[in-house]
Amino acid sequence: MLMQEIILKKRNGQVLATEEINFFVSGYTSGAIPDYQASALLMAIWFSQMDERETADLTRAITDSGEIIDLSAIEGVKIDKHSTGGVADTTTLITAPLVAACGGQVAKISGRGLGHTGGTVDKLESIPGLNMALTMNDFVRVVSDCGVAIVSQSPNLVPADKRLYALRDVTGTVDNVALISSSIMSKKLASGADAIVLDVKYGSGAFMQSLEEARKLAAMMAAIGERAGKPTTVLITDMNQPLGRAVGNALEVEEAIRVLRGETGGDLLTVALALAAEMLVAARLAEDLNEAEARLQAALDAGGGLRRLQCMIELLGGDPRIGDDPSLLPRAAETVPIRAAATGYVSCIDTAGIGHAAQLLGAGRATKDDAIDPAVGLKMQVRLGDSVEEGEELGRLFINRRENFERAADMVRECVAVADQPPPMSPLIHDRIRSGGG
Amino acid sequence: MLMQEIILKKRNGQVLATEEINFFVSGYTSGAIPDYQASALLMAIWFSQMDERETADLTRAITDSGEIIDLSAIEGVKIDKHSTGGVADTTTLITAPLVAACGGQVAKISGRGLGHTGGTVDKLESIPGLNMALTMNDFVRVVSDCGVAIVSQSPNLVPADKRLYALRDVTGTVDNVALISSSIMSKKLASGADAIVLDVKYGSGAFMQSLEEARKLAAMMAAIGERAGKPTTVLITDMNQPLGRAVGNALEVEEAIRVLRGETGGDLLTVALALAAEMLVAARLAEDLNEAEARLQAALDAGGGLRRLQCMIELLGGDPRIGDDPSLLPRAAETVPIRAAATGYVSCIDTAGIGHAAQLLGAGRATKDDAIDPAVGLKMQVRLGDSVEEGEELGRLFINRRENFERAADMVRECVAVADQPPPMSPLIHDRIRSGGG
Repeated sequence: MLMQEIILKKRNGQVLATEEINFFVSGYTSGAIPDYQASALLMAIWFSQMDERETADLTRAITDSGEIIDLSAIEGVKIDKHSTGGVADTTTLITAPLVAACGGQVAKISGRGLGHTGGTVDKLESIPGLNMALTMNDFVRVVSDCGVAIVSQSPNLVPADKRLYALRDVTGTVDNVALISSSIMSKKLASGADAIVLDVKYGSGAFMQSLEEARKLAAMMAAIGERAGKPTTVLITDMNQPLGRAVGNALEVEEAIRVLRGETGGDLLTVALALAAEMLVAARLAEDLNEAEARLQAALDAGGGLRRLQCMIELLGGDPRIGDDPSLLPRAAETVPIRAAATGYVSCIDTAGIGHAAQLLGAGRATKDDAIDPAVGLKMQVRLGDSVEEGEELGRLFINRRENFERAADMVRECVAVADQPPPMSPLIHDRIRSGGG
Repeated sequence: MLMQEIILKKRNGQVLATEEINFFVSGYTSGAIPDYQASALLMAIWFSQMDERETADLTRAITDSGEIIDLSAIEGVKIDKHSTGGVADTTTLITAPLVAACGGQVAKISGRGLGHTGGTVDKLESIPGLNMALTMNDFVRVVSDCGVAIVSQSPNLVPADKRLYALRDVTGTVDNVALISSSIMSKKLASGADAIVLDVKYGSGAFMQSLEEARKLAAMMAAIGERAGKPTTVLITDMNQPLGRAVGNALEVEEAIRVLRGETGGDLLTVALALAAEMLVAARLAEDLNEAEARLQAALDAGGGLRRLQCMIELLGGDPRIGDDPSLLPRAAETVPIRAAATGYVSCIDTAGIGHAAQLLGAGRATKDDAIDPAVGLKMQVRLGDSVEEGEELGRLFINRRENFERAADMVRECVAVADQPPPMSPLIHDRIRSGGG
């Protein structure tokens, strides 16, 4: 088999055979196929697309490039949850413990944040003492003891995805349904869960800027799950404004704790509960979504979710007292208000821009080697449709250095458009797609 | 400027700015831009195309990546001639000396053959003693003395093209009008001629398989010549059968000599004269094509072309007596007839396949490091529309080793389709395109 012939075939719009996809992924992982042929194929895939069978084969080949975690020592249906990435999206830290409190086994491998979206690993690592680099034995033990474990990705998992992702990032081939689906789903398949619930974000703060593209991605991932024998449910949720109010690692952990304590709610809780309900149904711990929602609400009211989160934090070496007193989390030295420049209604929010402003303060990374400051970030006071007066506080920066803070405040102000009329409101949950068409 | 943003821009169908194209070519030549980004851009260009201005900029950037030859020491209009590559296409060895015999100054830098088409360098190097690696001073001296010099490409000429061509070859990005045009025209612009005549081959033995694609390529190259201030004429000529009868290096030199001696003619002479007439008009040595053709015929009849070729061979260190006695060229040890398997008319010839059969015998290279045997190859006896009887000789192999010869004979037989009816005949010269619309 010749790599240039595989490139030509895809370039000419043909469907690649399973063996050709395997040849590419294994050759690229071993180093036998050079980067320049891989990037040419990726660009050909970007233009010619891959169908469902090809994408499922690509996913399987990437999955098989490394270790596959064996969770069979854990009783019951193990469930994984993943978001395509948003701003102020702390659903994992709410959803996973609530599902555990209802008897679920949540085994989740998380990544770090890059660009304008945060990563669960960075958020949890803002908790003093917490270490997410667990051995697989410890991972299984934490799931068994707490019903929930979130750990950072092992270097042995999906090595082909790591190489391909780095290459896509610098060759203009990130935004393609087949390539995104296979990257996400290979990690899910390698992490050993029995059922998968995915949150595909759509809107100004998401990688998917159109609902149509989000639907294609959702359908493709559900189909891959189906072909791999892993029931997969995908919710398409709105990311046209920050989901919660906090953007920044310790700030987001604090917001999640306050949700689990019943002190706050809003869209963040709504989406977290919707995802959790899908997880309970997928794990066959509830008959339907109504039953699931009732059980989740009861667990929330009884503080069961908070206790599961504290259990996990303690077993990961972190200080569980932050669940009772979030002020034990790292705190920024100073806060700075961001004030509205005009009077009217919040008509549009450039959500990615809000993420970039937090990144500029040190809350996120521009490149994967950047250090982050767990304490810094921002909190938004306003949501789409809110009426604001000139000079009113739109939000507040949390800073440790005065460097860049004025630019970040300006960025946030420019991201929040104020108009004479409130915008039409879009639904929070746009669609639900289940593998097998369920 | 960021290379990934240039890739994204082209991928999204936008037009690249001159500075972006310069940034790419100079960065790729210096090694600052890696192969994997270059191949992603090449694939994006393959899909999104480049317009005339972009292609002219790409050509200029590639030209400027290395040495540009200064031919100003030679009096008059210096003319270059180039073919996109065909089978049994020895026009250069006929056209160039005939133009010189009519007062032209032909300064041509040639390449080696790769794949199923031959290269003029390989053909001339079959002449005992001949060396084509000249210094530029010697190149100028040979043109001044003989009116014609054909030398091999200096390593300092268009280094960006060499790197890009090697990359295109293994990444499925060879067959694109912008990339082919810029590769050909950058070499022509760097070689310092004042006017350019191009022969774009179309048909079963050419890289351009459709007349529409050939027309696009011709128009693009004429436009690039126009923008660079070099009058450029392009003929689109037929390559649906081998142009001459000989395929193989010494065999083709012998055929060219026999044409210049007036012993044979046919389509090879017709196309050679048509190209030569365009060169004379481009060099303003004839008012129009009629005058040019008359002068060329007179030069042919008087043996002027042969003398110019012998002059050049001698100054390149070769044995000029081959012009009087072609049997001094390397000769194959054995010849083998290829016989028709059926009775009927030659209805179709897979001309690339004929080239591959000669390559298999050792006349051409599969990879650029392969050695070639100057003596081997084949001669075709039949042309499209000829009637043949079963068992009649279709052609003859010229071999030095018995290895592969039966496979080569089978290949040739399979390339020649015999049917009950003769095929419709297509014209030998399909079109003429001149820069400036002339």
